[in-house]
Order: sequence, then C-alpha cells, then structure tokens
Amino acid sequence: MNVVILAAGMGKRMQSALPKVLHPLAGKPLLAHVIDTARGLSPSKLCVIYGHGGAAVPEMIAKQNNGTYTNIDTALQEPQLGTGHAFMQALPHIDDDAPTLVLYGDVPLTTLDSLKRLVEVAGTDKLAILTVAQQNPFGLGRIIREGGKIVRIVEEKDANEAERAIREINSGIMVVPTRHLTQWLSSLQNNNAQGEYYLTDIVARAVADGVPVVSSQPSGEWEVAGVNSKVQLAELERRHQLNIANALLEKGVTLMDPARIDIRGELICGRDVTIDVGCVFEGRVELADGVTVGAHSVIVNAKIAAGAQIKPFCHIEDALVGAKSMIGPYARLRPGTELAEDVHIGNFVEIKNSQIAAHSKANHLAYVGDATVGSRVNIGAGTITCNYDGANKFRTVIGDDAFIGSDSQLVAPVTVGAGATLGAGTTLTKDAPAGQLTISRSKQMTIEGWTRPVKVKK
Amino acid sequence: MNVVILAAGMGKRMQSALPKVLHPLAGKPLLAHVIDTARGLSPSKLCVIYGHGGAAVPEMIAKQNNGTYTNIDTALQEPQLGTGHAFMQALPHIDDDAPTLVLYGDVPLTTLDSLKRLVEVAGTDKLAILTVAQQNPFGLGRIIREGGKIVRIVEEKDANEAERAIREINSGIMVVPTRHLTQWLSSLQNNNAQGEYYLTDIVARAVADGVPVVSSQPSGEWEVAGVNSKVQLAELERRHQLNIANALLEKGVTLMDPARIDIRGELICGRDVTIDVGCVFEGRVELADGVTVGAHSVIVNAKIAAGAQIKPFCHIEDALVGAKSMIGPYARLRPGTELAEDVHIGNFVEIKNSQIAAHSKANHLAYVGDATVGSRVNIGAGTITCNYDGANKFRTVIGDDAFIGSDSQLVAPVTVGAGATLGAGTTLTKDAPAGQLTISRSKQMTIEGWTRPVKVKK
Amino acid sequence: MNVVILAAGMGKRMQSALPKVLHPLAGKPLLAHVIDTARGLSPSKLCVIYGHGGAAVPEMIAKQNNGTYTNIDTALQEPQLGTGHAFMQALPHIDDDAPTLVLYGDVPLTTLDSLKRLVEVAGTDKLAILTVAQQNPFGLGRIIREGGKIVRIVEEKDANEAERAIREINSGIMVVPTRHLTQWLSSLQNNNAQGEYYLTDIVARAVADGVPVVSSQPSGEWEVAGVNSKVQLAELERRHQLNIANALLEKGVTLMDPARIDIRGELICGRDVTIDVGCVFEGRVELADGVTVGAHSVIVNAKIAAGAQIKPFCHIEDALVGAKSMIGPYARLRPGTELAEDVHIGNFVEIKNSQIAAHSKANHLAYVGDATVGSRVNIGAGTITCNYDGANKFRTVIGDDAFIGSDSQLVAPVTVGAGATLGAGTTLTKDAPAGQLTISRSKQMTIEGWTRPVKVKK
Repeated sequence: MNVVILAAGMGKRMQSALPKVLHPLAGKPLLAHVIDTARGLSPSKLCVIYGHGGAAVPEMIAKQNNGTYTNIDTALQEPQLGTGHAFMQALPHIDDDAPTLVLYGDVPLTTLDSLKRLVEVAGTDKLAILTVAQQNPFGLGRIIREGGKIVRIVEEKDANEAERAIREINSGIMVVPTRHLTQWLSSLQNNNAQGEYYLTDIVARAVADGVPVVSSQPSGEWEVAGVNSKVQLAELERRHQLNIANALLEKGVTLMDPARIDIRGELICGRDVTIDVGCVFEGRVELADGVTVGAHSVIVNAKIAAGAQIKPFCHIEDALVGAKSMIGPYARLRPGTELAEDVHIGNFVEIKNSQIAAHSKANHLAYVGDATVGSRVNIGAGTITCNYDGANKFRTVIGDDAFIGSDSQLVAPVTVGAGATLGAGTTLTKDAPAGQLTISRSKQMTIEGWTRPVKVKK
Repeated sequence: MNVVILAAGMGKRMQSALPKVLHPLAGKPLLAHVIDTARGLSPSKLCVIYGHGGAAVPEMIAKQNNGTYTNIDTALQEPQLGTGHAFMQALPHIDDDAPTLVLYGDVPLTTLDSLKRLVEVAGTDKLAILTVAQQNPFGLGRIIREGGKIVRIVEEKDANEAERAIREINSGIMVVPTRHLTQWLSSLQNNNAQGEYYLTDIVARAVADGVPVVSSQPSGEWEVAGVNSKVQLAELERRHQLNIANALLEKGVTLMDPARIDIRGELICGRDVTIDVGCVFEGRVELADGVTVGAHSVIVNAKIAAGAQIKPFCHIEDALVGAKSMIGPYARLRPGTELAEDVHIGNFVEIKNSQIAAHSKANHLAYVGDATVGSRVNIGAGTITCNYDGANKFRTVIGDDAFIGSDSQLVAPVTVGAGATLGAGTTLTKDAPAGQLTISRSKQMTIEGWTRPVKVKK
Repeated sequence: MNVVILAAGMGKRMQSALPKVLHPLAGKPLLAHVIDTARGLSPSKLCVIYGHGGAAVPEMIAKQNNGTYTNIDTALQEPQLGTGHAFMQALPHIDDDAPTLVLYGDVPLTTLDSLKRLVEVAGTDKLAILTVAQQNPFGLGRIIREGGKIVRIVEEKDANEAERAIREINSGIMVVPTRHLTQWLSSLQNNNAQGEYYLTDIVARAVADGVPVVSSQPSGEWEVAGVNSKVQLAELERRHQLNIANALLEKGVTLMDPARIDIRGELICGRDVTIDVGCVFEGRVELADGVTVGAHSVIVNAKIAAGAQIKPFCHIEDALVGAKSMIGPYARLRPGTELAEDVHIGNFVEIKNSQIAAHSKANHLAYVGDATVGSRVNIGAGTITCNYDGANKFRTVIGDDAFIGSDSQLVAPVTVGAGATLGAGTTLTKDAPAGQLTISRSKQMTIEGWTRPVKVKK
C-alpha cells in the first residue's frame, strides 16, 4: 500500500517561524508522529507533500530518528492550491495498483490500530473514510448515509438543519483505490470561496462511479483532531500525555498523579516503579525494577538500574545510575556520568563525564568532572575537580578507598592513589600517593589586636 | 459616569486577619482587580466603600500600583447595615447627573467588555442589571421577566417552584440612574431576617417608578462569582489562571500544560516562546523571541532577552538576562543581576547585584555578589566573592578575559585585572594584576607514617 | 460491635510484588486506611483476614502507626475460596452477640460518618448494606427493592434489562447480625463460575429468614471504590488528595492550586497559612500562623513556627524551623535540624543534625552538619563543617556573634569562640579564640612570566 502525508500547510494561527507540522508534541514534530504511525503499516511507498517552510520539512525527515527515516519520498507543493492539488503531487511517487492511505501532518494522534482497521475495511477496491461522532460537529463535513451507506459528505455551509444535526463527521483520513485517483483528482473543481481543490470531493466521484464508500471509527475524537493553533497543540499534548500515563499505570507503574507527568520520548519501566508528581522524562529513559523517582525530577536519556532511588529535584541527562544508588535531592548528573552500584550522590552535587565505581559517595556541594573514581571513595563536601585550565580539559583519577577531605581542589591531570587521604582544603596539584595523608595547608594563626570592621554610614 | 465599589464586608469564612477584599488573587488584592477593571471605564468618580478591616483598605489603595490609584475616594461604612446602606455612603462622592455602576470588591473577574456592554444598555435613564444564566441558581435572586422585560427579582426564600426553576440570576452588578438614587435608597426597608438594607430592592422601586429595567450578560458565570471562602478563592484563582494561559496560547506562546502555569502579574512574550510545566511568574516579566523556560522555574520581575534558555529549577528575581544566555538548571539570579549576551550561569550558582558582560561563564557552585565582571571571563566552580565583612559590603571587579580558578575567594574590595588568571583555591585579598597568574597556595605535603582514624564504638 | 476486614485478595492487576492491600495511598497502606477508619468506631473486636502476601500483612499491622495497632486479630485464609469463606475465618475472633461490620482492605476511603450511619440503621437485629447510586453500575450487583424494601441483590450476569437499568448498587460493605452468621455462612454454595463462596449471598438468607435488610448511603461513589489496578489507585489517590485540599481550604488555608498539593500524612495549619503550587507534605507537618510555603517544596515531619517563610524548592525533613525564619530557595534541612527564631538559611545550603540559635544566617552554598551554632552568627558562603574523618563524626561549636569567613572549613571537633572572626578560606583545625580574628592563609603571589595554557588540537 501507499501512504501520502499532506504536510504543506502554513499554520498561520501557530504564529511561529516554524512550519506547523514541525511543532513538537511530546518532544517530537507533529509530522514525525504521523510518519512513525504510518511506518507501522509497512507501506511500500510513503510520500510527504510539503510546501510552507520549504526545506525545513525534508530536513527534519532526514534527521529525525537518527536518520532512520529511509524510503520516504518528499514532494513539493508550490503553490498551495488545496488538499486535492497537494495529493496530485504524490501521484508520481505511489504505486497505481495498491490502495493509498491519506494522512495529515498536523493530525498527530491517530493510532496504528485505527488505521489498520480502516485499511482492512477498504480492501483493494473501496474508498474508506475514517469518520467519528463528534461532540460538537460545527464546521466539519457531515457524513450523509442512506440505508447505512455513505452517499455523500456535506460541508457546514451547504448543510440543511437535519444535516447539521448529524454528529458523524469526515476526518479527512481515507484509503482510496489508487487506480481511480488520476481521473478523480483531475476532475476536481476549484470554484469555491478559497479557490482550492478539495480532496474531499473525490468521495462524490466515488459514489458517482459506483465505487463503494465505507468507513471505520477511531476510539476517540482526539485521534482525528488537527493542530491549527497553540490552544489545540496544548490540548493534544495533554491528551497524549494522559494516554501515555494510562498505559504506564496499566503496566503496573505507580504514578502519584497521572495528570502531572510528562514523557517526551520513551519511558520503559520495570516492576514496582514509583514516580512522584511533576517529573519530566525526555528521550529514552529506562527505570528498572523498584526504582523510585522523587517529585519534580527531570530525566533525559538515562538508564536507572534496579532499586535506585532518585530523590526530588534531580536533573539527570545522558547518564547511567547503578543499582541501589541514592541520588539527590538536587543532584545533577550531566552527560557521560556512569555510576556503579550503591553510589550516593547528594545535594548540590554535579557530576559530568565521570565514572564512579561501587559504594562511593559525593554527598554535598561538589563538582566532579572528567574523573575516574574508584570504589568506596568518599568525596567530601565542597570538593572540586579543576578539569579546565582555560584552554584544555584534563582527567582526575581517584583510587579505591580514597578519602577526599572537604573543600579540596583536584587540579587535573592528577591522580589520588588507592586508600589515600586528602586533608580538608587541599589544593592538589601533584599526585597523592596511595595510603597516605596529603595536605596543602597554611598554619592557623590568631591575629592579636585585630578589631572588627564597623558599619559605615552612607 | 460614577463607579461605586462595595468593599466593606467582613469575610468571616475566609478565617483570616486580612479583610476579605485584600486577599490576593493572582498576586493582587481582589479589590485591586475590581478597581483596575473599573478604571478601564474612565469613570469621573470612583468611590470605594470600606468597613471591616478599617484603614487597611484605604492603605492598600494608596500603595497598590506604585501609588497610581489617584482620584479614588473612599468612604467608611460604620456600622455595616447592608448593601443599600453601604451605597448611601457613596452619595456625597458621586455626580448626580451621571449614571452609577455598582461593583463589589469581592467579585474580581468581571471583564471590562462585560461592563462596557452593561453601561451601554443602561444609557442615561435605565437601570441595567448584569444577569447570568447559572448552572445551579440555588440561593440567588431570580430574574422575573414578563414579555421579556424584567419586572422584579425574587429571592430564593420567597420564590415559588416555577420561579426557583429560573436559572437567570441577579449578579448584583448594575448601572443605576443616579438622580433617582437618593429617593430610592431612602425608601429601603430593613424588615428582613438580617435587619439589613438591600440594594437589590431598588429594582422594585425602578419598576414602580416606570424606569426601564434592562440587562446584559457576561461571557461566563465566573465573571460574577464572588469570593466568600478560600474554596471560592481557589476556584477563581484557577479560572483566572486558565484565562491567562489561554490568552497566551492564542498569542502563539507554547505552554506544555496550560493548567500548570501561574502568572501573578504581567507576562509579556515574544514569538516562539516555550514555557515548560510548573513555572511561576510574578510581577512584570518579559520573555523575548525564542526564549525557552524550563520546568519548575520561578521568575519574578525580569527581562529575558531573545533566544535565552532558562533551564529547569531556576529562580530569577529583579534581573536582566541577555540574549542567547544559558541559565541553570538550579541557577538563582537575585535582584540587581544584569547579564549581557551569551552569558552562562550554571547549576547551584547565585548571582546578586552584579553586572556580567558578554560571553562570561559561571557554570558551577559559585556566589557572585556585588561584582562587576567583564567579557569572556571564566569563573571557576566554587568561586566566592566575599562581599561582606560582617559590617559593610564591597564590590569585586573582574576584568575582561580573566580566568578565576576554582574555589577562589575574592575578598572585596578587590580587582582582578583583564586577562589575569587566579590559581585554584586562591584567597585574593589584594588586586591581581592584569595578564598574570596570581595564587595563594601552600606547599603540598604528604605526611609520613600517618594512619587513618578508626571507628570508635559507642 | 465487631469489625471484620477482608484483606486476603491477590491483586494480580497491580502487577506488583507487594500484596494489594499494602500499596500506599497518600503514603499509607490501603489496609491501614481501613483499619484507622474502623478504629474510629471503637469496635470490641477487630479482625483482619489475610491470605496473599502471607506474613507481610500481619507485619504491617504490627509496625504501622508506631505499633499502636493493638487489639487487632489476624486470621489467615488459605486457600482463598471467596469472600464468604474469608469471613468464616473471622468467626472464632468475634463476639456472637454484637453486630459485625464487614469492610474491605482494598476499599480505603469510606468515611467514618458513613459507617456510623450504617451501624445506626443496622441496630442489633437488621442486616444493613451500604449502597450507592453509581453513575455507571455495569458489572456491579444491583439492589432490588419492592415497596422501597431491599428484597435481593442481582448480579450483572443474572440481571434483566429493567434490573440492569438500576443504578443503586451493593458496595459489599455491610453490618450483619452476628448470631445468624454461622448458619448463613454454612449454607453458602460455591456452584458458580469461580467456584467461590460469596458473602453477598447472605442477603438472600436474611430475606428468607425474615431479617430486615436496610441500607444507608455514603456521600459519594469514591467512598465505596475499590483498588484493583494502578489506574484505580491513582484515581483514589487524587480523590483523596482533593478531599484533603478542600478540608484545608475550609479551615482557611490558602492553596494556590488545590489540584497541585500532595499530603501524605497529617498537615496541621494555623491561620493565614499560604501554600504555593507543587508542594508535597509527608508524615506530620505543622505550619503555624502566617507561614508561607513556596512553590515545589517538599516537607517531611517538620514543625514550622509562626511567620516563617519557606521559599521555593526547599526540602525539609525531620526539622524544626523557628518563628520568622527565612528558608531557601533551594535549602535542604535534614534530620536533626533545629532552627531558632529569625534564622536565615539560603540557597544551596544543607543543614544536618544541628542547632542554630536566633538571628543566625547561612545564606549561600554551605554545609553545616553536627554543629551547635550560637545567636547572630554569620556563616559565610561556601563554609563547610568537616564533621567526618572517614571513620567517626564530630561536632562543631560556634559561639554567639561569630563571623565565619567564606569558604572556611571547620575541621571537627572544633570550637569557634563567641564573637570570633574567621578569615575567608580558613581551614580551622584548632579552636578559634573568642573575639579575635583567626586565619590560615598563604601569601598571595603573582607569578612573573607565566603564560596561559594554549588549547591543544586533538
């Protein structure tokens, strides 16, 4: 089968420099949602019609999903003369002898299940429309049936009172028998207010030609809802987030509030995972069995191993957290952080591009960057790895069982030997030998006769 | 025209020491909302009747909006004998030959549009009531019409079954032809359960005197909803916040969740602004084109220039952020912070009363207070400006291109010259010359024969 | 009276290793909610029937509420052959001559009021059912009445169309005259699809024996809602949280958003308390008069005295905060923190197991652990109490009026005398005498001829 995605619209009401179909929903462009669902049907041809925004649309397709969007054709519609005209641009790119599914780049939440059912009812020789009973059908094309069969679609302005009372509407999503398409499309007229060629008009052609017009229905209105404004984008964002939250709950994840979790990507959870309120997940995040995530944490592209506890206010990005580790509150794990089992990272601690082995701790106010830290190491409060000299970055290596006194500065490149101890406040510029105490310390002195400063009146 | 705002009520159910009309909604006293809307009508006279809470109400009026509430009269109602009696206190303060709009200090969300329409239907010689069809009208005065015309208002307790079924109610907000007022008010009776004089009773007087009684309607029930309890205050707070969120969406702002943004003041957004969940804005905040605000940030009286990124968990107050700057996560910008273009302020960094020029960075765990920082300066992790000697505060000056080593203390007043470098852990008590390395450092030593402390059993 | 709580169910849909009745709602096991409500009736006998999860249920009962769950019998149902069979296990544990209330360990939110009314209508000789008019009764046992009297309960599968239209359903919660129980239970049949003995069937026995069957109703569906899945658990969590929020509002607490506060335990508020969005409270928390809690704060087992201000992003656990203190933003108070009046704890500051006397301040990036701090002390930015030598923890004592320079390390055990001053960057290893300046400082030097490192191409 063929899939054609119409994605040429301007989206003036979005009031944005970005083409409408590239606006993100759950962190992914609207059009990418449609493409991902379409690819679930394994179409032989997939063609995206673009227009407004120019090259930005093909560029997104080339880059999205790490460049895995292969076998997608794009066709430019220029000028934009309506959906029927848009569809015409796809004709050179699709197979004539397979049915064609028409999707819209700004209708992001149609489910694969709904499309599969639509494709099934269409078979190879019928025109199948995805219709839905709308709470408020005002402004939408009504489905007119006689004896249950679809005979035509009436637009709002042409509808009489009885027709306006009909709640079943045309979503625009349809499967068409492709061999009729050239003829039907070429017969479209643009003698309407907008001067556009409407794809919908092919339904009348099908009826006239005796091609059966059938339908199927999605599970909810939101599956066919389009995005024309930020209001609608926000509505679909929330609908989508609730869908994701419900799916997690069904899998046994405990969510303290399904209305207060945001997942922009993929969240994979083991058994007995608990996620507190206000958390945001981006990219691919894995939470293994028994992981708890505290309130208001932000986690991006991370793998959290079994039994780890993430306390409130953590920010974790491109990081691995080992089993039974305790993170936060207020811990920031930056890209390249790899924590082994039972590592403790406490409040106001930042870790970057560092490997920390099992049972080590950095519990308070520290910066560990570009470091390799052994097992059972204690990194005191206020410790800083000075990894940058203003021009280059260097690594710090800390051996197993080392004890780094509070407020030490480790001026990289530098190595602290296994079992070494650094005194509080040490500025370490040369390697510290294993098993011994190293310090850099001035003598403590009390100044005789010193008097406190006095407040100066201004 | 005249506006009289009745604001004398006690608000016992608020269970607060604060007079009811001074409780904040979206950070502003209820009464100030009403005054601000009333001022949109440019009334010739505006009089607030106060009572409970005494001087607190006139004091708020004098202070609110930086003292711009001029030309507002206040009149004390003492004792409080009902709305009719309250209104009488306004008579000396209003013009007899202009119509008078009656508002309520505890009904904060009536829109200017609704009031303008009400004033228009009233003209100069009619009594106009703001009425609304209420989902649940129980307890409210029903509008009785004959042939479409308002003939009287029936209170719940006096209503028959047919009248109780009426959903159109009297909001109490009305425009009255002032020249009738003295006579109507003086004829009010207090022979009711509360022993009070009810302003509503003047509607019957108008009908009796052949003065036409007309009406107009607001866009929703919430426009006439009053605050008598914290439950109602919370309901209107959420209603108001959703209204603000929708207005932002309509202007093209991307809100990740319109139900999770709080704006207590004025939020002005450019194009392509994105605001993540859980953000709170107070006072006047400007977000220029392309600004993104990360989850759970709190921003108060600030100006964020184009393209700046505010990451999650930031707290910004009375500060300017330059274009393309990167702030946070967990950055705190305190009053007097002025960041130029492309400044980076990272995690657990506090800036106060400081100017930082373009391209400078303070990325980790630092306190920069009372400082003037040049361009392209790198402030290392853990750096602290020691601006306070226990009695006085002093400034730190850092020249362009300086590199401040990690964990340095800059004991103000002190100057770091342009292009100077401070070694890690430096305690800077005298100026550091430009272009050179300055340090204060003890010799690193390893102590022979030292043995680790052993855990003492208790 | 007797109370029997059926808590043997497996809860397969919870997809958890934890027995269903032990899943927490508002931080407390479902079963503990039911026990707490039951204890409000002061029953002479209270028996919990457990099964799946084995000893975990009796263990929770022994531990919950600090072991105050005395006088609770437990009985094992093994194998699990239905609610009627479960109930039989309770017979040896209850008084024959008192009525018996049947509750369910997975129906957590029934109110004490509703149960009291049910017990009252039951008297000593009637069978009383808690029934509720359900919006969607599908799948639930319908209450069949004749002449207003309950004559039987019809299960969904046995119901005709008229019966299916009945919205009044059997919650399963009932009071039974105990002396009939042995006979009724022994007559139960398990000739149904599940092969189970259903407690509900005793209603038919009661009707057959001429025992009056009466009913009362709770205030809402949620009072009889059971938890069989994480979806239902989340629904009841939110319902419960909204109930708590409304109760706080009714008492006069200002909540910026009643849908965004989580209380897992007991929150006791004085007058004029304001709580901003996104706050989480756990355990027992007291907020005295005039306390404000900033957005996104997490407070666990704490007492906050009158007029204290908690700013956004605070994390407070097992701590006391004195009157008029200013905490945060981003302050972490760990267990054992005791702050006296007017103490200021600022951003990125951690306090643990320390007493801080009145008017003292630690405003920036500091760690104060195991310390006793006097009055009017100023703890500079970056100060760290080095309380741990890798083996033992020691205390730091700071006298009244001391001034601790920024970035100092206080190597415990150590004492700073009253009125002492420490210079910035001091490593204090010996006591600092009162009233004098103590420092440990290296000479500041500028290195001649030093040149900056140059970026190395890789």
